[in-house]
Amino acid sequence: MAEDYSKKRLITKKSENFSKWYLDVVLNAKLADYGPVKGTMVIRPYGYALWEAVQRYFDGLIKKEGVKNAYFPSLIPLSLLKKEKEHIEGFSPELAIITIGGGKKLEEEIAVRPTSETIIYSMLSKWISSWRDLPVKLNQWCNVIRWERRTLPFLRTTEFLWQEGHTLHETPEEAKEMALQALSWYERLYKDLYAIPVLLGIKSQSERFAGADTTYTVEVLLPDGKVLQGATSHILLQSFAKNFGISFQDKEGKLKHPYPTSWGLSTRSLGPAIMVHGDDNGLILPPKLASTKLVIIPVLGKDNAKVLDFAKKVKKVIEEFKSGFPGNVELWDSDKDSFGWKVNEAGEKAPVTIKYRQLDLEAERIEQGSLEKLGEFVEKMLEREQVFLYDSAKNNLEDNIRQAADFVEFKKIMSEKRGFIKAFWCGSEECEKRIKEETKATTRFLPLDAKEESGKCVYCGAPSKHIWCFGQAY
Amino acid sequence: MAEDYSKKRLITKKSENFSKWYLDVVLNAKLADYGPVKGTMVIRPYGYALWEAVQRYFDGLIKKEGVKNAYFPSLIPLSLLKKEKEHIEGFSPELAIITIGGGKKLEEEIAVRPTSETIIYSMLSKWISSWRDLPVKLNQWCNVIRWERRTLPFLRTTEFLWQEGHTLHETPEEAKEMALQALSWYERLYKDLYAIPVLLGIKSQSERFAGADTTYTVEVLLPDGKVLQGATSHILLQSFAKNFGISFQDKEGKLKHPYPTSWGLSTRSLGPAIMVHGDDNGLILPPKLASTKLVIIPVLGKDNAKVLDFAKKVKKVIEEFKSGFPGNVELWDSDKDSFGWKVNEAGEKAPVTIKYRQLDLEAERIEQGSLEKLGEFVEKMLEREQVFLYDSAKNNLEDNIRQAADFVEFKKIMSEKRGFIKAFWCGSEECEKRIKEETKATTRFLPLDAKEESGKCVYCGAPSKHIWCFGQAY
Repeated sequence: MAEDYSKKRLITKKSENFSKWYLDVVLNAKLADYGPVKGTMVIRPYGYALWEAVQRYFDGLIKKEGVKNAYFPSLIPLSLLKKEKEHIEGFSPELAIITIGGGKKLEEEIAVRPTSETIIYSMLSKWISSWRDLPVKLNQWCNVIRWERRTLPFLRTTEFLWQEGHTLHETPEEAKEMALQALSWYERLYKDLYAIPVLLGIKSQSERFAGADTTYTVEVLLPDGKVLQGATSHILLQSFAKNFGISFQDKEGKLKHPYPTSWGLSTRSLGPAIMVHGDDNGLILPPKLASTKLVIIPVLGKDNAKVLDFAKKVKKVIEEFKSGFPGNVELWDSDKDSFGWKVNEAGEKAPVTIKYRQLDLEAERIEQGSLEKLGEFVEKMLEREQVFLYDSAKNNLEDNIRQAADFVEFKKIMSEKRGFIKAFWCGSEECEKRIKEETKATTRFLPLDAKEESGKCVYCGAPSKHIWCFGQAY
Repeated sequence: MAEDYSKKRLITKKSENFSKWYLDVVLNAKLADYGPVKGTMVIRPYGYALWEAVQRYFDGLIKKEGVKNAYFPSLIPLSLLKKEKEHIEGFSPELAIITIGGGKKLEEEIAVRPTSETIIYSMLSKWISSWRDLPVKLNQWCNVIRWERRTLPFLRTTEFLWQEGHTLHETPEEAKEMALQALSWYERLYKDLYAIPVLLGIKSQSERFAGADTTYTVEVLLPDGKVLQGATSHILLQSFAKNFGISFQDKEGKLKHPYPTSWGLSTRSLGPAIMVHGDDNGLILPPKLASTKLVIIPVLGKDNAKVLDFAKKVKKVIEEFKSGFPGNVELWDSDKDSFGWKVNEAGEKAPVTIKYRQLDLEAERIEQGSLEKLGEFVEKMLEREQVFLYDSAKNNLEDNIRQAADFVEFKKIMSEKRGFIKAFWCGSEECEKRIKEETKATTRFLPLDAKEESGKCVYCGAPSKHIWCFGQAY
């Protein structure tokens, strides 16, 4: 699907205006487009292929650990959502409500799922009765609707795609272990697939998921010094199980309520994957995330039959190398587009374009041996690229974690480079609110491995036990 | 997730009451359950795994032919749906309408997608301008909502999952070729995965998709002699392209409208996959569709450590055979459930349970050779089972295609065994309607390879050129 090539150069430089660069890249690289309903987004084939890579990777991880996929209806009666007070309070401003079905006004209003805890628990209450039914480990790949007024492709959209994991356990210890395991899966996915290092921690009370006892978070640093919640994992309030009447007989025959967790990663996470690695020229994707890993562009003109024949051989050799690249190598042999257009287009589609001019094109003189080395060569090149992107991002992250001894220093960092700021916080919501008002920084997390220390709140000076991590949300 | 074993035997015999047997099997084998909103269904892990097998198989087929996956919003403004007159007339009685979003009454009502032609074409009109942009071959895996008053698990539900393919072509010939290719993919899927032979044909005008010029269908025979539309593929009216302002410049610089097709296969197709092969004892799944292909149940009691150690070896050997069975072999080593319970449960979960008593359990005396043969043994056994199921279904289909020379014969067949009936039809909607009223049989299709013949309409006796296939829809 060709576009006017001259249009493609209208990408704002990342170094000049990061937000505009991001929109330019998403739209020009045809990752996404705006949908007709305000707040919605179309995920175009090249963008959707990224989500497919996420699905393949994550689905493999969770299945190995006994999580089973299922599908629950997207239509949730409002009465079900209202069963857990904190949950509905958090979600009611974002709901899309169906009032007409099959041509008739409905007796009960129906919400399109913003998340599936309530409908899943209403079903689990029917399916669970004994300790033998636990643990339950379910996952669902689906769309959810949360009303948004403004769209920011991938990052803020009324509809997004995600996986939502939902589990039930006999003990709170098992629930905690599960939530932390999910967190570690997200950390791995960010590292292995997105080539992005993340920070792990616990959310403050005001930043928790509506209905969570504990919310764990994976936090990402963006190129402009703002930060983002990359995925979350929750130990839910046991009231979820109680309010939905889920109970089980333990081994001693006693009736108990199980302990729930939920955890989710969405297409929103593709935002940072695009933001972190690109440069002034446009999109750069980590090879493991990119669907098109390699583009072969034959130089057409004379001897086309021979050139194409050779290009096809190159493609085959690479694709068959350790069966590592089936479907990931594209041969652009069409004569619809010019060589120049193809080279520029390839720059945005594939991390790697092999320039391989030196090979002799006389078919009979190609040594099988030299061709066969190509597979290994490409594999190494892609691995190197993946490691390079991760290392660059890691260096940048490390350079942007700063400690603020007092509020003057805190404000100075926020007015300059931002990034993550470590500072003592007394834990009061009042200080959290004031810090946000004065600097735009919110509490991001208490590091997972935080030890009890002794210091003074960076805002009010009151005795504080923990150093929290702050940052400005994108 | 264990249940009272005694409950499990409450499966109606298939030979006694087919409809009740189907519901018993779906609910007892935990394939699905009813959702809280009338008409909705929960697809439980074991049922969802079947859909995952469909996704893997079909996604592989279409990607090889250059179809790209994408995701379009599920929220469609009503005004978009109304742009194609025949389309909205067909779908308006089935729509779910959102009137409230983010706490406010919406200015324009929004439909939850019943199918995505309109939203996809509204986007393609922005993306397409030249012959170089064609063909467009998109596919989407998603949920759709079509209001239903009664639920029949898988077969009739307000929400279902499906793939919807949408393509645009330069010429009507290419569009036809695409629609027929999609049809052949569905035929292959039914044969290879579901072990079900299907009949292919063209729908009559009254049975066409709302907005189609031609609807091709894959038709399935069910065990009670009723028949089902298993998947459809449409050459759409060119008005779709016109009404949505999609045009392209051809090689000569002339402005033209492209030719659209769409084609879909849904979770509804899992209905026949379950119905066709099961027997009085319950569910029978073709091995290629089943997620759990093999269950190993160690006989626990004495020497448990040795028995389990051996069972694990058996599992490993089979799983690693040609890497054909990763994740498809289950070892039920838990002591939560009894051996008897496991054996019965396994009967519903896996096509094959190996009884392998003769092997010597003394670890040091197991010959590596005999163990290694297990992989091959299992593979052959599963292949045999797959072929056996297909052949049985094929014999049954062939036995149930009958020719009716006149309406007396037609009515006799319909009052006895039903199945597919071949008969001349004049093509008038009046005869089609009367035949349905008097026998419940509708026109199912004109066979793809139908030749022009000369005969008399089975109902009115008027001269007729074609022999159509009739049957009673499930």
